[in-house]
Amino acid sequence: MKKGSNVSLSVIKRLPKYYRYLEAINEKGIVRVSSKELSQITGLTASQIRQDLNHYGCFGQQGYGYNVRELMDELAKIIGVNKEYSMVIIGFGNIGHALYKYTGFKSLDYNTKAVFDKNNEELANEEVKVLSTDNLKEYLEENNIDIGIITTPKEGAQEICDILCEGGIKGIWNFAPVDLKTKNDVVIENVHLDESLFTLTYFINKPEDFTF
Amino acid sequence: MKKGSNVSLSVIKRLPKYYRYLEAINEKGIVRVSSKELSQITGLTASQIRQDLNHYGCFGQQGYGYNVRELMDELAKIIGVNKEYSMVIIGFGNIGHALYKYTGFKSLDYNTKAVFDKNNEELANEEVKVLSTDNLKEYLEENNIDIGIITTPKEGAQEICDILCEGGIKGIWNFAPVDLKTKNDVVIENVHLDESLFTLTYFINKPEDFTF
Repeated sequence: MKKGSNVSLSVIKRLPKYYRYLEAINEKGIVRVSSKELSQITGLTASQIRQDLNHYGCFGQQGYGYNVRELMDELAKIIGVNKEYSMVIIGFGNIGHALYKYTGFKSLDYNTKAVFDKNNEELANEEVKVLSTDNLKEYLEENNIDIGIITTPKEGAQEICDILCEGGIKGIWNFAPVDLKTKNDVVIENVHLDESLFTLTYFINKPEDFTF
Repeated sequence: MKKGSNVSLSVIKRLPKYYRYLEAINEKGIVRVSSKELSQITGLTASQIRQDLNHYGCFGQQGYGYNVRELMDELAKIIGVNKEYSMVIIGFGNIGHALYKYTGFKSLDYNTKAVFDKNNEELANEEVKVLSTDNLKEYLEENNIDIGIITTPKEGAQEICDILCEGGIKGIWNFAPVDLKTKNDVVIENVHLDESLFTLTYFINKPEDFTF
């Protein structure tokens, strides 16, 4: 198997988690960590962790474990957080506002270059200039944008997605409660808040299905 | 296998998706749907869909398929969206604000009863009364709350989680970028925005790992 390809989605989804834990460990000044220690912190088995990291050639050393900083840097490269990304937000409602202000990205080179909304004139304020969605196509022709964040209602979200794909975007972070179809090999990651809340209510009603 | 128990997480995570699609189909006035048609809409295989629904005793009829309204109602019961839930939000920053105003729950009986924040006095406005987090414990003793939504920074999130668990909450919807430990069989569902964005940047850098 080619390293880094054909890796299952569940492995890929765990990488940012490892990165987050390593960041916390690194902040505490800890230099090395064993897969057993990582297991205690993450709740995953040591063998699972070793297997996940081996996919990417991140091998710990027998009797030493992993060098925290090295593994963190390696994961940063794999996840791609060591790079700069230009982003646009389409839909400046509640979620759009929250993401625009979200401090979670501030330490990274993830830069929101522009914000678009159908009702841009009403939404404009002193803090942020909101552009009309009608100008999105033109904007993408003139600017090099990596990520499009869709926070519009489900109606019209596919149309926005199409414009983003045609406009040379690389990835879409979709918050609209709809599954979008991308073109030109544009990758997509969904945050479906309603589905997440429904998963919670499922478990509230069937706690026997929940893994504590 | 006991129906509805020991069902894998990936099956459970697909149920809200089925529900969303059925809602859309129902809105169009369509009365029946085959697993093949559901397959075309959802992108999942017909056999996968049948298998998922069979877990819960939702059997379609040979040659007829599923009655849309019936299957939707059945799924609503399984996911638990047919019930009323009382919720509190702890942390009234950007995400807390967005969730408070989120229209996605408005059609459901998911009611935000109170909002808490450490800096409650600064955050209070005419629209919403923000209570001090110091009063959360007391509030939970006096009110019957089902769901606690945590949108605080990672620091202090576990402490809030403990108060919620002790306060008789049934489930936690966690937006803090940390994995929380619950007590008393309280179930938890995480929305880790940073991990989601990192998954996107992973795929931007390794599109060969993405399933289009």
